[in-house]
Amino acid sequence: MQASIITIGDEILIGQIVDTNSVWLSKELNKAGIIVNEIRSIGDDKEQIISAINDLFEISDFIFITGGLGPTKDDITKNVLCELFDCGLVLNDDALQNLKRLLGVRGIEINEQNYSQALVPEKSQVFVNKVGTACGMMLKRGEKLLFSMPGVPFEVKYLTEFQFLPYIKQTYKLGNIFHKTILTSGLPEAVLAEKIADWENSLPKEIKLAFLPTPGYVRLRMSIYNANDDLLALADKKLKELKNIIPKCFKSSEDLDLAVLVGTLLTKYGKTISTAESCTGGKIASMIVENAGSSAYYKGSVVAYDYEAKVNVLNVDKHIMEEFGAVSSQVVEQMAQAVRKLLNTDYAISVSGIAGPDGGTPDKPVGTVWIGLATPEKTLSEKFLFFYDRKINILRTTNTALLMLIDELEGN
Amino acid sequence: MQASIITIGDEILIGQIVDTNSVWLSKELNKAGIIVNEIRSIGDDKEQIISAINDLFEISDFIFITGGLGPTKDDITKNVLCELFDCGLVLNDDALQNLKRLLGVRGIEINEQNYSQALVPEKSQVFVNKVGTACGMMLKRGEKLLFSMPGVPFEVKYLTEFQFLPYIKQTYKLGNIFHKTILTSGLPEAVLAEKIADWENSLPKEIKLAFLPTPGYVRLRMSIYNANDDLLALADKKLKELKNIIPKCFKSSEDLDLAVLVGTLLTKYGKTISTAESCTGGKIASMIVENAGSSAYYKGSVVAYDYEAKVNVLNVDKHIMEEFGAVSSQVVEQMAQAVRKLLNTDYAISVSGIAGPDGGTPDKPVGTVWIGLATPEKTLSEKFLFFYDRKINILRTTNTALLMLIDELEGN
Repeated sequence: MQASIITIGDEILIGQIVDTNSVWLSKELNKAGIIVNEIRSIGDDKEQIISAINDLFEISDFIFITGGLGPTKDDITKNVLCELFDCGLVLNDDALQNLKRLLGVRGIEINEQNYSQALVPEKSQVFVNKVGTACGMMLKRGEKLLFSMPGVPFEVKYLTEFQFLPYIKQTYKLGNIFHKTILTSGLPEAVLAEKIADWENSLPKEIKLAFLPTPGYVRLRMSIYNANDDLLALADKKLKELKNIIPKCFKSSEDLDLAVLVGTLLTKYGKTISTAESCTGGKIASMIVENAGSSAYYKGSVVAYDYEAKVNVLNVDKHIMEEFGAVSSQVVEQMAQAVRKLLNTDYAISVSGIAGPDGGTPDKPVGTVWIGLATPEKTLSEKFLFFYDRKINILRTTNTALLMLIDELEGN
Repeated sequence: MQASIITIGDEILIGQIVDTNSVWLSKELNKAGIIVNEIRSIGDDKEQIISAINDLFEISDFIFITGGLGPTKDDITKNVLCELFDCGLVLNDDALQNLKRLLGVRGIEINEQNYSQALVPEKSQVFVNKVGTACGMMLKRGEKLLFSMPGVPFEVKYLTEFQFLPYIKQTYKLGNIFHKTILTSGLPEAVLAEKIADWENSLPKEIKLAFLPTPGYVRLRMSIYNANDDLLALADKKLKELKNIIPKCFKSSEDLDLAVLVGTLLTKYGKTISTAESCTGGKIASMIVENAGSSAYYKGSVVAYDYEAKVNVLNVDKHIMEEFGAVSSQVVEQMAQAVRKLLNTDYAISVSGIAGPDGGTPDKPVGTVWIGLATPEKTLSEKFLFFYDRKINILRTTNTALLMLIDELEGN
């Protein structure tokens, strides 16, 4: 089964809002075994709405439309649906009762403008929207279904999760689609692709592989179509083979956040962490702290951006700084040890590097980064040479530092 | 002039990533006076790519395509372009030199797979992508132009801003559209809208207003269509009026980054800053450090997430902590003073708050935040009550803290 999504509304086309509805819908439909083949964002324009629906019914079993159902004059979706399905607007009693209930709660009376929200194309089946004033609607073209809903994100979620998807699951037998994701670090996309080319070619056609690069790592997503027990077992076997081909390779959930994984592992082992950051300027700390519950394992960070801060707060040896430079194995190891002691944690990560665009030397070009890790048993450090954009270097350094810690924790 | 955007890649269709490229592109194209009429997200599928291009050339002068240019076998955009424009792939020397340069920096040798990134459709004009290995390309169908670029966001930005848009501006006469942006803080969007409703209604039809809310502030963008001297003068006059209606209101560029403005002001006054962060966990520091040249005015931060860190590193008075709690005027003022002294800076910002979802009390519900500011003359603090989502609370706190500093610096 295939689906297409149409989002209607000018605010997406002028770049004013991010279309999070499509992201959420795609994810949910995929999980349900429905392949999303196209997403179109168009304005409140009759011709464009008509041609989008006609085009997409050619390639899809289901069309999901968000937006254009408000009570103002630029919302034309319902009128266009009437024209396309050759019927008029009629009052729907369920929609009217729901509208009265919702407006009543807010002490608003029905007027001509909001009354229009209870009018629906005569040929549509109404799905009551308990969380909003515009209802969900379904229209049929042969065996194919069109679902129309408002553009408000939580209304999209309510109608899809509690109304449309249950209806679809009851009515159609959906194909099984599974996704398995692996996170690899240490190899850029092109090198990785070459290294696993033979392995990739050995996958059956029901298993598709996608490369999803992020600064610092590449995720590999395996999609298993028409999944049955044999195919799932084969996929697992293939993933195990992969671990022999790529050195650093972690099982990962679809939307894995490295900082979340760090938190999960630290919680599992009952350990704590602190950070000492120079070129990342607090990015590692802020990625960890963004996750709820991080106070259980995260103590704090010293962002020693300045030379003085490294010396005064972290007591980095002045002579070491002068002899080896702030971007050196010696300095990051001292930083990690110092912050680990200062904040009394089990582990500490430290970074010092040249994020760019200035500050590079022939010896230490822009992108040179040292990452240190202090554990209860040892202190280690590793050198990296990253790319040229400042923000990307910072993100890459942050992700690489978190991966170094994950590697250490997983090895425990 | 009208444009359409096509984003190619399965990761959008399965909901794994948010399509930020389209948002950014739409905003930039609109700013340049080009109307975006449709955005399509499709998979790496030949038939869909072909029909999207053919359809969209019917309604647009320009098509911008992102994605599908990687070195792996699921990237088929270039082959499809060859078929559609009836030509073969040829080696482009500029692209090859750029590729060699970028790979060389990382010590990677050219192999068959990454070599393919220097191959382009024979009929295309190449725009060198200084920040990535896949080049930008332009193909013509009559007077209409197709621009193809990789899907990596900073490469999209580089190619559009420095290559494609300058080319378009040189070649076509675009309608005159000017934008003026004002940043307002302290009023939520709905309240702001009500407060300036009369003012907004007094604008002539050539001047349109858009509300661009961000956690912590709302930008107002005035778009002046078919701009001439009279209209521009009127717009300036109207903006001056606005400053009498809204208390906190700063002139701003379209994509103003608060941390960049902080940097500009500190540089202008020759001052330095440090930060002491609890609930923001280093976010303020990392936003400042992301900007090149920040070492001139930024010294560092103590991320005192933990109780102990506040006491041990920042010497916050234990009794004060016990009496007033970590989220209090007294504690943020001590934090600001301490870090200002520790890192020897002119100014210091501090924050302590309850970002959520847990940790709230009836007295101090989730979203309660104190922000402190120490200057050479004084220390002040202000309390805020934000909304309920952790990440949004952190971002809102960060932006509000930066705005407090800007306000102080602008007042100087």
